[in-house]
Amino acid sequence: MATTAGQNMRIDPDRLWDSLMEMAKIGPGVAGGNNRQALTDADAEGRALFQSWCEAAGMTMGVDRIGNMFATRAGADPDALPVYVGSHLDTQPTGGKYDGVLGVLGGLELIRTLNDLNIKTKHPIVLSNWTNEEGTRFAPAMLASGVFAGIHTQQWAEDRTDAEGKRFGDELDRIGWRGDEEVGARKMHAMFELHIEQGPILEAKEKDIGVVTHGQGLSWTQVTVTGREAHTGSTPMPMRRNAGLGMARILEEVDAIALSHAPHAVGAAGHIDIYPNSRNVIPSKAVFTVDFRSPDIKVIEEMEARLHAAATRIADEMGLEVAFEKVGGFDPVTFDESCVTAVRGAAERLGYSHMDIISGAGHDACWIAAVAPTAMIMCPCVDGLSHNEAEDITKDWARAGADVLLHAVLETAEVVA
Amino acid sequence: MATTAGQNMRIDPDRLWDSLMEMAKIGPGVAGGNNRQALTDADAEGRALFQSWCEAAGMTMGVDRIGNMFATRAGADPDALPVYVGSHLDTQPTGGKYDGVLGVLGGLELIRTLNDLNIKTKHPIVLSNWTNEEGTRFAPAMLASGVFAGIHTQQWAEDRTDAEGKRFGDELDRIGWRGDEEVGARKMHAMFELHIEQGPILEAKEKDIGVVTHGQGLSWTQVTVTGREAHTGSTPMPMRRNAGLGMARILEEVDAIALSHAPHAVGAAGHIDIYPNSRNVIPSKAVFTVDFRSPDIKVIEEMEARLHAAATRIADEMGLEVAFEKVGGFDPVTFDESCVTAVRGAAERLGYSHMDIISGAGHDACWIAAVAPTAMIMCPCVDGLSHNEAEDITKDWARAGADVLLHAVLETAEVVA
Repeated sequence: MATTAGQNMRIDPDRLWDSLMEMAKIGPGVAGGNNRQALTDADAEGRALFQSWCEAAGMTMGVDRIGNMFATRAGADPDALPVYVGSHLDTQPTGGKYDGVLGVLGGLELIRTLNDLNIKTKHPIVLSNWTNEEGTRFAPAMLASGVFAGIHTQQWAEDRTDAEGKRFGDELDRIGWRGDEEVGARKMHAMFELHIEQGPILEAKEKDIGVVTHGQGLSWTQVTVTGREAHTGSTPMPMRRNAGLGMARILEEVDAIALSHAPHAVGAAGHIDIYPNSRNVIPSKAVFTVDFRSPDIKVIEEMEARLHAAATRIADEMGLEVAFEKVGGFDPVTFDESCVTAVRGAAERLGYSHMDIISGAGHDACWIAAVAPTAMIMCPCVDGLSHNEAEDITKDWARAGADVLLHAVLETAEVVA
Repeated sequence: MATTAGQNMRIDPDRLWDSLMEMAKIGPGVAGGNNRQALTDADAEGRALFQSWCEAAGMTMGVDRIGNMFATRAGADPDALPVYVGSHLDTQPTGGKYDGVLGVLGGLELIRTLNDLNIKTKHPIVLSNWTNEEGTRFAPAMLASGVFAGIHTQQWAEDRTDAEGKRFGDELDRIGWRGDEEVGARKMHAMFELHIEQGPILEAKEKDIGVVTHGQGLSWTQVTVTGREAHTGSTPMPMRRNAGLGMARILEEVDAIALSHAPHAVGAAGHIDIYPNSRNVIPSKAVFTVDFRSPDIKVIEEMEARLHAAATRIADEMGLEVAFEKVGGFDPVTFDESCVTAVRGAAERLGYSHMDIISGAGHDACWIAAVAPTAMIMCPCVDGLSHNEAEDITKDWARAGADVLLHAVLETAEVVA
């Protein structure tokens, strides 16, 4: 007969923190963070350390053909599908010590805690490290969980190249982390991912835990505005076709479009290139990428349509040309209701302050949600800062996140009395 | 007794065109134009060809210590100050065949025509090639005419370095074109510069000749807007401090400020850099240069003040910071009334369509105007295109410009009967 874990069961925050600091020694950054990009020597070293910790915790390691790592703690029922936990150990080139790593080592801490307390579960628990979540070296992000979930083919993923032209598949072989398991063959009872928020909401609202109900959908539209190169001095204002000014007007519309779908939709351009980018030449071309996100696919589609209409109108008014290219996107995710309820219930029982939240960034869990009941737990990060060596969290936040992960997983994996 | 030249006196357009094409063979570009940047081997080769042509036309060459070339055709009165004509032979890295070169070789054609017709003038005529007008290799533009006019010191100019760190003074010595004349010691009766318009007005208005009455003043303000780097997905709209959006709003104000001083004032930003310029990061910083121009210094000062006020207000409203740096500028120029009248009268007598025009770009004549009575003549260029290998003019436009230059110079230098 299954029971839930007692309210007094907690992970060991010092052990978790020590492991985080130990992992951070591998692939150190230049400013206190990490540079442990996917399929580098540092990635291999981090994987080996993780494997040694898993084996010391009595788990057996499986690796699939795209390098995803799966460490299994056996369950009592040989027919029960495993409950998965995990995230990714790779980092941005100037990344932090917690993004992704907290989800993997929080899962490890969960296993260590169960071992300490000699707790058995009906379902096996599998701790995973997904290959190349960041996508900085090999675009796109969440590459190997995407192959696992059937979003990409394995061959396509292996053919991705880095800035030096090195293939993903070749680099996977080079670092020696290609396994023999078929990618995506594993079946899951459920999957939980703990991750730092990478945004400012939880800290601002003074909440320990974000119960992630949805993953925002994403639409990236690269807009190219073409005008006419001309001298900034000798071209009268009415004869100018200023692509930079056209861009400015479109950016104002992007802001208005996102705000009209408050509070959940967002929109901005982070990437802007101006040509020829000379102080005394009217811009002949502006290329920029509009990033729209919303948990509602209809809202994303409407925002895209309004962008096209507004930019076309602005270009027409100014004698400019405009072209659109959809350069990225994924649909919104609604996480599994029973998994989300398990997370919310765990936070409630443990007395951690919590709120429902929508993930603005993509995560491995967003892809896995397509093939298994999935949920995410978020903990705050200082100033919302992430993808930055200055990324920071407190030990208390890490503790709360791992405690909730422990309880949500135990409830789902079912404690055997 | 002095007389003016007869209305039937004309330059030889074919000889002028042949010389333009001959000079264009030196330092060819990659797309039909020229790359004959200042103090390169190609510049030295162009100077040598120009010197040989001047000597063949009976002139004597003087060179000053900063490489400015002065070829003199003697006058009848040994006490009369010379009338100067000329422009520059250096080009942009992807420049055209006419910008500057037309003014030098149009002056040469004027001398050749006087020789053909055996016309003597009271005042000597000096044909000049100013060093490093373009300023692309060694900023700023109009460097050596600026030293001549006392705007810069010679030492400061010689210490300018190119992108490889090479000093102007060293490169001048290397190509062997440092002369022994003190810079700026020459006194001028007047100075005339023929130049292509580098703008679209004359072609659009179907005028052969622009009578340049003023040179626009210039103000370059580099604006730095600082916000906060944040994830484009996980940062709610009200918590963003988007430096890119702040820049967009300031660019809209720049346009409105310039338009409020129509028709002569202009304003735009040609240089825009966004940081970190990543598709999924809200811009933390935008750096851009606002270029304001007007023939009225009061208007320039008012436009600068309105930019500061508007950008500060926008930054305050958006939680951004803004900083201003004046990175360039020169005062408006009012060309000499009698020289301008000579140009207008010459165009009128010769039957060329003409209009008064304001030079939007800087020219050597703008600096020389500080030390001598000066005027400029402009001829149209196709589509207003310049600083571009596709820069183009017609032989008829070149002919009209050189004819007007001939007559304006002759009237000022006084034909000796």
